[in-house]
Amino acid sequence: MPTQNPVFIPGPTNIPDRLRKACDMATIDHRSPDFRAIFEPAIAGVKKVLGTRTGEIILFPATGTGGWEAAISNTLSPGETVLAARHGMFSHRWIDMCTRHGLDMQVIEAPWGAGVPVAAYAEALTADTGHRIKAVLVTHNETATGVRSDIAAVRRALDAAKHPALLLVDGVSSIGSMPFEMDAWGVDIAIAGSQKGFMLPAGLSILGISQKAIAAMEAAKLPRTFFDFRDMLASYKTGGYPYTPPVGLINGLATSVEMLMEEGLDNVYARHARIAEGVRRAVAAWGLKPCAQSPDLYSETVTAIVVPQGFNGTDIVTHAARTYQVAFGVGLGQVAGKVFRIGHLGMLTDVLMLSGIATAEMAMADLGLPVKLGSGVAAAQDFYRSNGGAARVAAE
Amino acid sequence: MPTQNPVFIPGPTNIPDRLRKACDMATIDHRSPDFRAIFEPAIAGVKKVLGTRTGEIILFPATGTGGWEAAISNTLSPGETVLAARHGMFSHRWIDMCTRHGLDMQVIEAPWGAGVPVAAYAEALTADTGHRIKAVLVTHNETATGVRSDIAAVRRALDAAKHPALLLVDGVSSIGSMPFEMDAWGVDIAIAGSQKGFMLPAGLSILGISQKAIAAMEAAKLPRTFFDFRDMLASYKTGGYPYTPPVGLINGLATSVEMLMEEGLDNVYARHARIAEGVRRAVAAWGLKPCAQSPDLYSETVTAIVVPQGFNGTDIVTHAARTYQVAFGVGLGQVAGKVFRIGHLGMLTDVLMLSGIATAEMAMADLGLPVKLGSGVAAAQDFYRSNGGAARVAAE
Amino acid sequence: MPTQNPVFIPGPTNIPDRLRKACDMATIDHRSPDFRAIFEPAIAGVKKVLGTRTGEIILFPATGTGGWEAAISNTLSPGETVLAARHGMFSHRWIDMCTRHGLDMQVIEAPWGAGVPVAAYAEALTADTGHRIKAVLVTHNETATGVRSDIAAVRRALDAAKHPALLLVDGVSSIGSMPFEMDAWGVDIAIAGSQKGFMLPAGLSILGISQKAIAAMEAAKLPRTFFDFRDMLASYKTGGYPYTPPVGLINGLATSVEMLMEEGLDNVYARHARIAEGVRRAVAAWGLKPCAQSPDLYSETVTAIVVPQGFNGTDIVTHAARTYQVAFGVGLGQVAGKVFRIGHLGMLTDVLMLSGIATAEMAMADLGLPVKLGSGVAAAQDFYRSNGGAARVAAE
Amino acid sequence: MPTQNPVFIPGPTNIPDRLRKACDMATIDHRSPDFRAIFEPAIAGVKKVLGTRTGEIILFPATGTGGWEAAISNTLSPGETVLAARHGMFSHRWIDMCTRHGLDMQVIEAPWGAGVPVAAYAEALTADTGHRIKAVLVTHNETATGVRSDIAAVRRALDAAKHPALLLVDGVSSIGSMPFEMDAWGVDIAIAGSQKGFMLPAGLSILGISQKAIAAMEAAKLPRTFFDFRDMLASYKTGGYPYTPPVGLINGLATSVEMLMEEGLDNVYARHARIAEGVRRAVAAWGLKPCAQSPDLYSETVTAIVVPQGFNGTDIVTHAARTYQVAFGVGLGQVAGKVFRIGHLGMLTDVLMLSGIATAEMAMADLGLPVKLGSGVAAAQDFYRSNGGAARVAAE
Repeated sequence: MPTQNPVFIPGPTNIPDRLRKACDMATIDHRSPDFRAIFEPAIAGVKKVLGTRTGEIILFPATGTGGWEAAISNTLSPGETVLAARHGMFSHRWIDMCTRHGLDMQVIEAPWGAGVPVAAYAEALTADTGHRIKAVLVTHNETATGVRSDIAAVRRALDAAKHPALLLVDGVSSIGSMPFEMDAWGVDIAIAGSQKGFMLPAGLSILGISQKAIAAMEAAKLPRTFFDFRDMLASYKTGGYPYTPPVGLINGLATSVEMLMEEGLDNVYARHARIAEGVRRAVAAWGLKPCAQSPDLYSETVTAIVVPQGFNGTDIVTHAARTYQVAFGVGLGQVAGKVFRIGHLGMLTDVLMLSGIATAEMAMADLGLPVKLGSGVAAAQDFYRSNGGAARVAAE
Repeated sequence: MPTQNPVFIPGPTNIPDRLRKACDMATIDHRSPDFRAIFEPAIAGVKKVLGTRTGEIILFPATGTGGWEAAISNTLSPGETVLAARHGMFSHRWIDMCTRHGLDMQVIEAPWGAGVPVAAYAEALTADTGHRIKAVLVTHNETATGVRSDIAAVRRALDAAKHPALLLVDGVSSIGSMPFEMDAWGVDIAIAGSQKGFMLPAGLSILGISQKAIAAMEAAKLPRTFFDFRDMLASYKTGGYPYTPPVGLINGLATSVEMLMEEGLDNVYARHARIAEGVRRAVAAWGLKPCAQSPDLYSETVTAIVVPQGFNGTDIVTHAARTYQVAFGVGLGQVAGKVFRIGHLGMLTDVLMLSGIATAEMAMADLGLPVKLGSGVAAAQDFYRSNGGAARVAAE
Repeated sequence: MPTQNPVFIPGPTNIPDRLRKACDMATIDHRSPDFRAIFEPAIAGVKKVLGTRTGEIILFPATGTGGWEAAISNTLSPGETVLAARHGMFSHRWIDMCTRHGLDMQVIEAPWGAGVPVAAYAEALTADTGHRIKAVLVTHNETATGVRSDIAAVRRALDAAKHPALLLVDGVSSIGSMPFEMDAWGVDIAIAGSQKGFMLPAGLSILGISQKAIAAMEAAKLPRTFFDFRDMLASYKTGGYPYTPPVGLINGLATSVEMLMEEGLDNVYARHARIAEGVRRAVAAWGLKPCAQSPDLYSETVTAIVVPQGFNGTDIVTHAARTYQVAFGVGLGQVAGKVFRIGHLGMLTDVLMLSGIATAEMAMADLGLPVKLGSGVAAAQDFYRSNGGAARVAAE
Repeated sequence: MPTQNPVFIPGPTNIPDRLRKACDMATIDHRSPDFRAIFEPAIAGVKKVLGTRTGEIILFPATGTGGWEAAISNTLSPGETVLAARHGMFSHRWIDMCTRHGLDMQVIEAPWGAGVPVAAYAEALTADTGHRIKAVLVTHNETATGVRSDIAAVRRALDAAKHPALLLVDGVSSIGSMPFEMDAWGVDIAIAGSQKGFMLPAGLSILGISQKAIAAMEAAKLPRTFFDFRDMLASYKTGGYPYTPPVGLINGLATSVEMLMEEGLDNVYARHARIAEGVRRAVAAWGLKPCAQSPDLYSETVTAIVVPQGFNGTDIVTHAARTYQVAFGVGLGQVAGKVFRIGHLGMLTDVLMLSGIATAEMAMADLGLPVKLGSGVAAAQDFYRSNGGAARVAAE
């Protein structure tokens, strides 16, 4: 029997019914005004979520990986230098992609569990008086480690060094769930995906691009057609697409931003923060620690939990899937086996989160980890209540 | 934001995706062979769920209440005597309906929380040497109190008294979730509804009728057309309906029985029993008691929980709905305010049930009930584990 | 391969996507304010469609047949006299139901193809100086013959005779597709179904009841519980239901009336009239005639077409279904074999209607009827164009 | 009111209900065996549709344009020579893409309406004794002109010249609707899209790649990561994906191939051919001609119809959309305004096609084209009947 249990992977998220219905559309002519009536509100809404008034939005029928490729291929030329930090699987993969595209990578290694090393970035930028570095990459939320980095600080480092490099930010697992301020932070390209904070199926790579990035577009020599900003921006002017757009997903996106606006972005962020804190209280009650090195780094969308010596995080995930039909995330790369991950983003409630915490508890207990049943649940309940139930009773 | 939390009311249940899709059909001609291809497997499957080989199945586009009315109006005439027990809201309503239809009700009052009083039934039947009693009503599962009654025992009482009365059984909230043996128990009419064990939306009243009930049909003088067995049985012979059938719901029913058979009825019953026992362990951990008077009466589909003196069960339900967006059931009739009810039937998993238990815990704590957060969850986890996770690890 | 061809039966109609999605709902607690937020707009919208400000609306989880039974059992007592005309299968069935419920039927036989015989009604009412007649039945749109009757004229006959009988009207296949004025026509009970003009699946019986009908309710002695207006009206006052309502269908109804209002009822009626007239032009081009005796009787929702001597209408329907996977309606009762029916109600467009006309043409030609391919289509195209395309070009 | 009219654009096609439901999935963990159970049958089915036993299948979350880019970037290096013909918008765009990727294009210009110029290809290949040409591009079905090209003949030309160039074929608007024999024709890369013969929403680029193409993969120097075959093939070995796959679409694809196999590929092709021939008969009845220069070139999925002097094909499309809510395709590039296009692929029936023909007729008549209403419909009906209805009656 299909269980219909929620998933607790760090994306794709559980999809709200309303979005499933929005995506499930009869075919319309994508060259007609009917399409424009879907597309334009989607674009307008995404701007609000990204925090940009001056940037443009481009939607590719692709994934976050496609977004990375679009970002670099539209702004850079082979041999150019790019500054990046490797501190998790996703920052690692983006660096790998750049290398494969012939870029000259200046990589700062950082511990998996640390944020982007802003001081080291600042140093590198200051040292680069010749402005060889053309772009700086930052992974806003390292999905592999549950670490949030400080984009505003990187911007300050660039500004302090008076460095003209483009700031390219992977916000795939943060945008729509955690505050993101593209304009305020001076982000040149922000990359999001449909399957995280937007609560949709995978299949849309969502990019915000600054006017500065657009200005860099013509000179960029990396070859691209499918991912070419120029074709997209030209087509968008007439409400169209250079190829067949995924109309249903775009309708889903229009509806997703409508839902986010109805709830209020601040409320969405607060909900994510509350649910995440409940998870962290549970982790503490279990006597375990997040992979993220310090509280300022805690991601509000995913928590990577370090398992005790002698245990394997992947076993917990496998066991939970097989025994309880609940999906958590395994550790990746350097932290494979050392952590397991609880995703807590998108369409989630305190109540559903408690079922995830309870399941993690059972799975760990089954495998012999010294975790007391109910302990994490109680810690989370206590937090959720004091931010909800008890307060309401007091007010009644 | 719609929460997509599961509901924990004693029906309608959460609807599995597969059934939602089965119900959501384009229109077909209900007089065509396409309809028959849907209808016939639905009927065949329902027979298995009801445990009948010799009976017929009739599906009315109605609810359980309509099923009660169909049962009595097709077998009885005004002024005839019917034996029934009142021990909960649903047995009460059926009695009320009979009275309104001019039947002469011989009612045995029993405590709300007790099962059907078999001894009193036996006594009444034995005393009725003139066979004035034409039908005996039993509510298999009193949804208001979470009490299961012993149908086989009522049959034994009838047989011991050599009494020819028809045995009419309301199995609305038991059939499909708890063992039901229409033929073995000598049930003459069994009444089910689409929205409980069949996990569908409300809208189908599902009846199993014995050959003895069919034999009584012609003599029955209560007026009926919409609910007339005769029109139904005549139409069914040609694969049709006397009026427009709800095709999508019937397709849902065909798919529902397919799902139940795929899981295996015994496994379905075992799952319900396991989930229910977890709830009862939680109740015990909270220091509370079920409304059902003794363990042999415990329903596997709903638990009515007696709240401590000084508290109101309805408040718990209202608070959980408002604060946590989770639906439980209120107490009805005699037990209004005195109990609240947790439904645990249909498409449910251990994992989802834990979220319900955790929510009940928070709601009670919010309202000042002396309930320790995590205590019920831990008790249920412990039970679910020992019947699942721990066993699997041992086997691995 | 499922063809996804539209159906051209006189109901259930093709269901618009938006309504399929509205019906396809996750379970909510039907005792919660969430239900009320669905139910109340549905009721308010139905009032507009029925044309009543002073009446009440009741929704039964049933079909049109259930609506008939509710209408009579809530207003009449066994042995009371009811005036009705038999001029088609559906008026016949309602009369049959009344007889089975012990009512004393004063039946006026009329040709199948005629409307309700207003003069004969007037005569009967005038003759009934003792007001023995308690109710007058009218089938607004005889689905079997494609005949519309004049409700306002029946009201005038009642008023002229100063007769207090209730006016009960079956509007199942007219309401929502053809003008209906409950208050203006003095209708006491109007009966509609979800699966016709409301474009929904079958499963809701929709009744409008006047204050006069409500006043008759208490005295009515026909037994009923499932269909009891009293329970419904009492529950509605608290936003609830006396039993489990079909929430998804009611949500569909709320959305259906929203769609009807968005299009505008007058536009909906004009669309039905235009599509129907196209069908009639096609019928004329084929050299055939409608069953309806005169143009004032033509139904805008279904056309019953008389087949030439030597041919059988049922064969056409069977052949079209088997060969072209298109559903038309067979003749029923007295006109079985003599007609076949094209339904043209609900969600339909000129364009889809043309595919139905083209299919009927092919099916008739296949079976040897002297019908020229393309002839009916051309006649309908010509009409649809002059009411659409050509006019638009002129205006451009 | 949303019309729910079918679309007659040459893709995306109308989506069968079954596929819409297959795509509309709750989120599952794409790293779990549940995903593999979806993915593997999809791949196996696509192999059958492509006609390959020895090739591999890769699915990108992209569109046909992405497929083109994947094909060239995985097999070619900057500066290498590619042979191609320009005879329509889509062959033109692929050439343009190659140029932008730094390939040295050897382009043969051919009339828009002609097929791929096999003789000129043969000549070029024979002349290329140094095997400078690394790849030959062929657009199997030019969607812009409704022209089918002869892939087998191109293969024969390659073989006759003993030329080792890779044969890359755009089968986006043919595969799944017209016979395609990847192995028999020696196709090295075949490119399909979800939104054409597979009847799904846009969003999947479907590639068949031969072992020879795989062998070329390592040497290819065009940069790519999102579209890298190597990452895909490596991940597929473990049932996984290098990034988040669009699970719902892949489930749709698995179901699509299931539907195609149930109908039988030969029957699917015959259905497309029959429906297309009906359209061409209609075109002839209107006194018009297809853009395709000769019958051997006629596409079975789209017909581009040349409009008479003094009329503009785009006006017909615009008018049909505005007035009748029916979508046809406009002319593109060189044939913009000179043609309009009727798509007839995917989930279509004779019956639905007749509504498209009837609408085109009305739109042309509205705009003053000398087209007799009903004429095209009659010609198509006559053809459809003789291949369906009349034959069946004879057999009965």
